Amino acid sequence: MIRTHGAGTLRAEHVGHHVTLAGWVARRRDHGGVIFVDLRDASGVVQVVFRGGTAEADAAEAAAHVLRSEYCVRIEGTVEARPAGNENPELPTGDVELTVTALTVLSASAPLPFPIDEHLSVGEEARLKYRYLDLRRSGPAHALRLRSDANRIARTVLAERDFVEIETPTLTRSTPEGARDFLVPVRLQPGSWYALPQSPQLFKQLLMVAGMERYYQIARCYRDEDFRADRQPEFTQLDIEMSFVTQDDVIEVGEAITAALWSQLAGYEIPRPIPRITWHEAMDRYGSDKPDLRYEVELTELTEVLRGTEFRVFAGAIAAGGYVGAVVMPGGAGQTRKELDGWQDWAKARGAKGLAYVLFDAETGAPKGPVAKNLSAEHLAALPDAVGAKPGDAVFFAAGDRIGAQELLGAARNEIARRCGLIDENAWAFCWVTDAPMFLPVESSDDVAVGSGAWTAVHHPFTSPAGEWLETFEQDPERATAHAYDIVCNGNEIGGGSIRIHQADVQKRVFDLLGITPDDAADKFGFLLDAFQYGPPPHGGIAFGWDRVCMLLGGLDSIREVIAFPKSGGGFDPLTGAPTPITPQQRREAGVDAKPKPKAAEAAEKPATAQ
Amino acid sequence: MIRTHGAGTLRAEHVGHHVTLAGWVARRRDHGGVIFVDLRDASGVVQVVFRGGTAEADAAEAAAHVLRSEYCVRIEGTVEARPAGNENPELPTGDVELTVTALTVLSASAPLPFPIDEHLSVGEEARLKYRYLDLRRSGPAHALRLRSDANRIARTVLAERDFVEIETPTLTRSTPEGARDFLVPVRLQPGSWYALPQSPQLFKQLLMVAGMERYYQIARCYRDEDFRADRQPEFTQLDIEMSFVTQDDVIEVGEAITAALWSQLAGYEIPRPIPRITWHEAMDRYGSDKPDLRYEVELTELTEVLRGTEFRVFAGAIAAGGYVGAVVMPGGAGQTRKELDGWQDWAKARGAKGLAYVLFDAETGAPKGPVAKNLSAEHLAALPDAVGAKPGDAVFFAAGDRIGAQELLGAARNEIARRCGLIDENAWAFCWVTDAPMFLPVESSDDVAVGSGAWTAVHHPFTSPAGEWLETFEQDPERATAHAYDIVCNGNEIGGGSIRIHQADVQKRVFDLLGITPDDAADKFGFLLDAFQYGPPPHGGIAFGWDRVCMLLGGLDSIREVIAFPKSGGGFDPLTGAPTPITPQQRREAGVDAKPKPKAAEAAEKPATAQ
Repeated sequence: MIRTHGAGTLRAEHVGHHVTLAGWVARRRDHGGVIFVDLRDASGVVQVVFRGGTAEADAAEAAAHVLRSEYCVRIEGTVEARPAGNENPELPTGDVELTVTALTVLSASAPLPFPIDEHLSVGEEARLKYRYLDLRRSGPAHALRLRSDANRIARTVLAERDFVEIETPTLTRSTPEGARDFLVPVRLQPGSWYALPQSPQLFKQLLMVAGMERYYQIARCYRDEDFRADRQPEFTQLDIEMSFVTQDDVIEVGEAITAALWSQLAGYEIPRPIPRITWHEAMDRYGSDKPDLRYEVELTELTEVLRGTEFRVFAGAIAAGGYVGAVVMPGGAGQTRKELDGWQDWAKARGAKGLAYVLFDAETGAPKGPVAKNLSAEHLAALPDAVGAKPGDAVFFAAGDRIGAQELLGAARNEIARRCGLIDENAWAFCWVTDAPMFLPVESSDDVAVGSGAWTAVHHPFTSPAGEWLETFEQDPERATAHAYDIVCNGNEIGGGSIRIHQADVQKRVFDLLGITPDDAADKFGFLLDAFQYGPPPHGGIAFGWDRVCMLLGGLDSIREVIAFPKSGGGFDPLTGAPTPITPQQRREAGVDAKPKPKAAEAAEKPATAQ
Repeated sequence: MIRTHGAGTLRAEHVGHHVTLAGWVARRRDHGGVIFVDLRDASGVVQVVFRGGTAEADAAEAAAHVLRSEYCVRIEGTVEARPAGNENPELPTGDVELTVTALTVLSASAPLPFPIDEHLSVGEEARLKYRYLDLRRSGPAHALRLRSDANRIARTVLAERDFVEIETPTLTRSTPEGARDFLVPVRLQPGSWYALPQSPQLFKQLLMVAGMERYYQIARCYRDEDFRADRQPEFTQLDIEMSFVTQDDVIEVGEAITAALWSQLAGYEIPRPIPRITWHEAMDRYGSDKPDLRYEVELTELTEVLRGTEFRVFAGAIAAGGYVGAVVMPGGAGQTRKELDGWQDWAKARGAKGLAYVLFDAETGAPKGPVAKNLSAEHLAALPDAVGAKPGDAVFFAAGDRIGAQELLGAARNEIARRCGLIDENAWAFCWVTDAPMFLPVESSDDVAVGSGAWTAVHHPFTSPAGEWLETFEQDPERATAHAYDIVCNGNEIGGGSIRIHQADVQKRVFDLLGITPDDAADKFGFLLDAFQYGPPPHGGIAFGWDRVCMLLGGLDSIREVIAFPKSGGGFDPLTGAPTPITPQQRREAGVDAKPKPKAAEAAEKPATAQ
């Protein structure tokens, strides 16, 4: 090392030591004949002082006049106690300073595009373009160190449980969710393409067929899709799969990892077992499959309470076999007209027609507002007890198909908590959401349907039906539940998994329901179905969204904060300028426009089949 | 867990315990009314016995008749001591057996394409197509477990030294070695492409500019090139970079990792420090930049000894300022005519014209063979002492340009060792090869030249010249040496690295020599050059070829053995059938044929520049 100590490690005990430091000029101040420099390296900051006095110290002081912010320097000097009264208690090194005897400029710095200052906010585009300067700030650098620690902690938990870390391929065949696959032309087989996997799902299941029993990987995954919701084209998941397990075994591992992370990195001991609620209970009570349990506001179903109402919106939903429900905004009756109109805009921005409400007068408790005029006196009288509203509260309603209406109320619940300051930002609230539906009608799914059937898989088509649904899911696909579980932290889904189907006949029945033909299945994941002919073990797993886990652990707002070199919107990298056009020569060499040779095509289209 | 114990964990101490196992039928034998099954899981194998006797045991025995190899089963029973004389000392569980009381078939197995047998060799294509069956054999499974252990051991060494594990992007911009980049079209920016990186080189250097100081990553890398030499289109390296270091610091970390791996996984304590030899010494003595030091045969230069010879081949090389050298094959004079002809074919297969030799008669010591006739008596008399040949030995010669001739002799040296049985297959021999040349003439390089100059970089264009060459490399590019170091194990390069250039002016001079214009440089890695304007620290690093490291640790012959799902020749995956043709719809959606929008093109072609 070209230094003897880290700048941030010097303490009173080093006084009198002659040391060599190397780092960056964080700040330079000239006080008459004395120059002060805050020297920063990865270990912290220390004050160094150019005082002259000897020939070499004079030379160093003269040289110090060229120093500007972010010059990289090597400094020799003697650690001295700061003069009494000049200590800086906010700095771990604040009792000492370095009196410089020699200075070497290792490299100069051009004027900075923005100051390296913890307290200055800089536009994200500039931060990402100059990410190598952004990361010199302790906050961003800390986020990357925290992520490294998170990796280590999770791996320790898994190693203690005999998990084997296995790398799975990233140049592979298009997977079920194929429409979002990145594609890669192959120079050596012109006209043929790899796909970058959206997850190691198929390979980790193959590893279970292979008898590896306990697999994990911190795996890079790829998804070529819209980046609205703080998404990246490449992202990372902690991917886990286990054989001969029940749901409880996978949940135990998931809790052990989560508890270790929060204990060691957030100083929070998660009460265990982490509570579990079913998907339907989560929707009924919180209007969300990832409920934020840091606050207590809950939804109330009013379908029965309001049956018989003449109010067209509610009556229509009830007549159609739908749902009417409500959520209470404490003190919401005091909102201005403008605030109440704002809720309508908020609801419309979410695709709803509006948000019906009734206000209960803070003095009299009398119901007010346009909807109140449309409800009968009996219904209005029943309302406060039914929903738990007190004088001064507002009640928001949603009516329509059950899931859609609950989701609107769930979003209103989160918005209420935000506006009313109900969220304790220092709180942590975890839960497992279990027994999600197996299937959704195709028309109510945002995802790309894998098959051509009327139903699409809520998780993925290898998820096992839960319990007795294993035999009967076709009879009532909408009610059938899956052996699936998501772990939720403060309203964020941080991980999810399921017990997989290992029985060939069950898998075939699920494919049939999804409208995946045997030919489709063979083309898309024939190799997995082939493998399942050879004694597949019962197995299940979980995957954590690692970017999001680290984001939450760091108390950060965006996954971009825990990624060394993230992309900005549209997958653009402000630092490297990627993606870029390619030259005709690159295009030719990569075989982008080649027609596949018949032989290659045949071999490729015919997946491995059993003999 | 649906079992209580691992099959391979049962011992005499468990006798009398009622246990539940789950695993695979490795073997079934019917002995009259008794059925024996070897049950295998990840922990090992135990013998289970269906004897009947009770109603439920009778039912289990009846059910056991359906069992065939690789059925996945759950078995309950009682651990019993094997009858005296029936113990199997070769099996850790050989003192006990399980008397079955209940059997559940978890899944059936179709007839196998090949038996799951340790001792049976199966063609590689079949092994890879049915990799999930291949991995049920203990050898292949052990290789993956060993790799997982290697990861853990390396990470422990690095964590102890305060390294930060950081993920770098894999969807990025084409890099210097661009002609071998895999390309990825971007749906959201049609006509624009990412490249998959051949290494994290640029990003790890950016992380040093960012002040992270100590970075590592077990990184997936990509190279779209010929797969002759046991290469994979995706491969893994343990990638390390450090700031404020000298070569010795990086070498210390490299040795610490290597020593920990070999100590814990191969039971071998590497003597440290690992010896270092310069690149030129390695070439002079061993004819290789990755010498196998398990045996002592060395090359001898004869350029001066044979000066003045009239033998055309040697005289021509000497006159051209080239090299004449030799290597001794102990006992090689006894080779048959056919064996000696075989050496000629061997040399021609390597691109040489042949391999000149002189044999020294075992009885008389007299020189024999066609070359002997062409050498003077004085030269022949000087030869045995010069090369260290004894009666009965053969001496092989090579003449021509220094490096080419030494490489031929180096390959002959390896071949001699193989044919003469000089290699101790249980030995480990490590060395560092340092001070490699900075540059090679373009015409003698197999690599794709980055620039248009007469020289190409032996390592990569960010490698620092060594010592005084920093100032003078342009004056004698062929002699200039780099601050580079490779670590070699048994003749395999397992890692390599260098101190990087952090001085903008030095970088510019290297680019000039390589014929990389400022425009080229800005286009290809402008973002790194931009970063280097802002106080880059001195830094250096190393990368281990992780597949090869694990292969050697496992005593295996191919990196494919330590990869869960490797590709076979040409990048084809026999398991999934990847790569495949894509559909016109996929092509359209991926934007393969889109023309980039002018704006995107402009933004992409203009890399970030400083203000």
